[in-house]
Amino acid sequence: MKVKEIQQFLQQENIDVAFITTPENVNYITGFNSDPHERLLGVAVFKEAAPFIICPQMEVPDAKRASGWEDVVGHLDTQNAMDILADAIRARVSDVKSIAIEKLHLNVARYEQLQERFVKASFPRLDDKLNYMRVIKSEDELVKLREAAKLADFAVQVGCDNIAEGKTELDVLNAIETAVKNKGYDMSFSTMVLTGKNSASPHGVPGHNKIQKGDFVLFDLGVLYEGYCSDITRTVSFGEPTDKQIEIYETVLKANESAIAAVKPTVKAKDIDKVARDIITNAGFGDYFPHRLGHGLGISVHEFPDISSVNEMALEENMVFTIEPGIYKGDVTGVRIEDDVVVTKDGVEVLTKFPKQLTILPVK
Amino acid sequence: MKVKEIQQFLQQENIDVAFITTPENVNYITGFNSDPHERLLGVAVFKEAAPFIICPQMEVPDAKRASGWEDVVGHLDTQNAMDILADAIRARVSDVKSIAIEKLHLNVARYEQLQERFVKASFPRLDDKLNYMRVIKSEDELVKLREAAKLADFAVQVGCDNIAEGKTELDVLNAIETAVKNKGYDMSFSTMVLTGKNSASPHGVPGHNKIQKGDFVLFDLGVLYEGYCSDITRTVSFGEPTDKQIEIYETVLKANESAIAAVKPTVKAKDIDKVARDIITNAGFGDYFPHRLGHGLGISVHEFPDISSVNEMALEENMVFTIEPGIYKGDVTGVRIEDDVVVTKDGVEVLTKFPKQLTILPVK
Repeated sequence: MKVKEIQQFLQQENIDVAFITTPENVNYITGFNSDPHERLLGVAVFKEAAPFIICPQMEVPDAKRASGWEDVVGHLDTQNAMDILADAIRARVSDVKSIAIEKLHLNVARYEQLQERFVKASFPRLDDKLNYMRVIKSEDELVKLREAAKLADFAVQVGCDNIAEGKTELDVLNAIETAVKNKGYDMSFSTMVLTGKNSASPHGVPGHNKIQKGDFVLFDLGVLYEGYCSDITRTVSFGEPTDKQIEIYETVLKANESAIAAVKPTVKAKDIDKVARDIITNAGFGDYFPHRLGHGLGISVHEFPDISSVNEMALEENMVFTIEPGIYKGDVTGVRIEDDVVVTKDGVEVLTKFPKQLTILPVK
Repeated sequence: MKVKEIQQFLQQENIDVAFITTPENVNYITGFNSDPHERLLGVAVFKEAAPFIICPQMEVPDAKRASGWEDVVGHLDTQNAMDILADAIRARVSDVKSIAIEKLHLNVARYEQLQERFVKASFPRLDDKLNYMRVIKSEDELVKLREAAKLADFAVQVGCDNIAEGKTELDVLNAIETAVKNKGYDMSFSTMVLTGKNSASPHGVPGHNKIQKGDFVLFDLGVLYEGYCSDITRTVSFGEPTDKQIEIYETVLKANESAIAAVKPTVKAKDIDKVARDIITNAGFGDYFPHRLGHGLGISVHEFPDISSVNEMALEENMVFTIEPGIYKGDVTGVRIEDDVVVTKDGVEVLTKFPKQLTILPVK
């Protein structure tokens, strides 16, 4: 399916070979997830000939199993991997005039080795095509993203269950990560648990701050499910909040819900950002929302598209991204509410389902 | 100090500029540790002119503080970072004939942008020079590596304190990582706690295996201290071991201690490997020691030099690496004992100090 789309691209652009080297994109195209460190890993796709994976010899069985492909070319540390690659390409296309490469990933050493082996070839850019492909999720990818979101909901619940007076941010963070690990999953990025004034920094770092009565506690976390990421933020109150805290919370919630309600095909990314930003600005907090509204989500926690005030891109069905407005008012508190959403045929599906009405945890 | 060494290299080789882009090497040279993701981060060093750091504008204050350098050039997302880089280079050298780059790191997109801006320049390779520099540690680096090793000793002790019948590998692993995090430090790689037959896989993955009386438990872990890594392995017995377990343990211990005793300047890396391998082979376990004896250690957990049967490199004072023989006998148990060592003027200093005589933990 993904190979076919690349083949169509090669035919349209009249390019002989696409050679893909970013591990995330190799995984995306073949289902084989591997970090080869300094060793050569890649996928070669041709206009017509069958594609192949090239990887270290010891990973060949894994690559075959994960991809279901027969054509997996191995190389030993004692061999020159670029020679093996060049031979495998020539066995499929006798006269190579162009090889599309990921220019933002391939390093100069390998590029020079390719140039030496294909002296007459040109090397057009493949990055933009792959970025665009990854923006639109398949049904299979959506299934994984839904499961990842469920696990994020679970992790936030663990966080809430572990809040108590005198506990530190790190105590709660460790409880969350331990619970997720014990279920057999990894976090998709470093978990954030921020309390009180620390939550008012958009890039706060969890530490030994103790949770105190009246604090807002902010969780920003995600879980990896079969290679796909979730990313959720919830802010809860430990004990009764002040009127000012409630005002900030309700403003962010309205921004989150209104932006989500505006999501559908053909609407521009920047217009979604504007819906949330206008609500926060009109409430007088515009200076305290210093970041874009959201970002794409999939194999990577941050990928295309940007949901920002400058992105003119029109939304399409099956794009997946976050909606995460926030207000960071240093002298009061910080609040961010983040959901993962999918653009549907005529609207939106929200993957993260942890309740958004202000949760007030009792102080025992 | 490190800048001076690069300047000498530029003078010797008659190269105008060295442009360093690997985040680990930027950190190594300047003390500024940053992951710029897709944004441009680098250090430019000249034969004579003052070097500068280039980084995203919002990181300029951090870069100045961490490096103590005045010359830090910022770029905004709305600017072309490569234009700013080219201007900053030309302000220091009017006629640029050569720019040494890290060919194993710089990507093709940036390389082409450099070529467009310096059309007459050649681009020699800088990788090998930087690798060689990093192999030999300074006194300041040794201080950090000693502290990192102390923290690894602490973490192994936490692991031993948390072993009990019925606990899983993940229970013990979580206890270790929580204790290290609570001290304010991060692990330098994913912690391994392997019990019973799982310890007999050199690449076992910790899971829900329960620790049982008579099991060997293998810890492989490391802690990061001010950017420098430790890496320790200890294998302990939970309850009384069998004679066969003791035989394997004592063989690995002898291999570890004998290889360490052989470390001194001028000895070749492959000869250190041979000392350990001969002991294990002569004891009849040669087939069960399938990996190199050790690897360099510093800013990265795995760096130069390889301590392997094919590395002819002679050891020099202040090289730092691991010594980690192992025997993985699937039907009995696995044992690995790993230390971090420094080559001294006439011998060796061992950084990891957790006891190596077989620890037998009581079953309560």
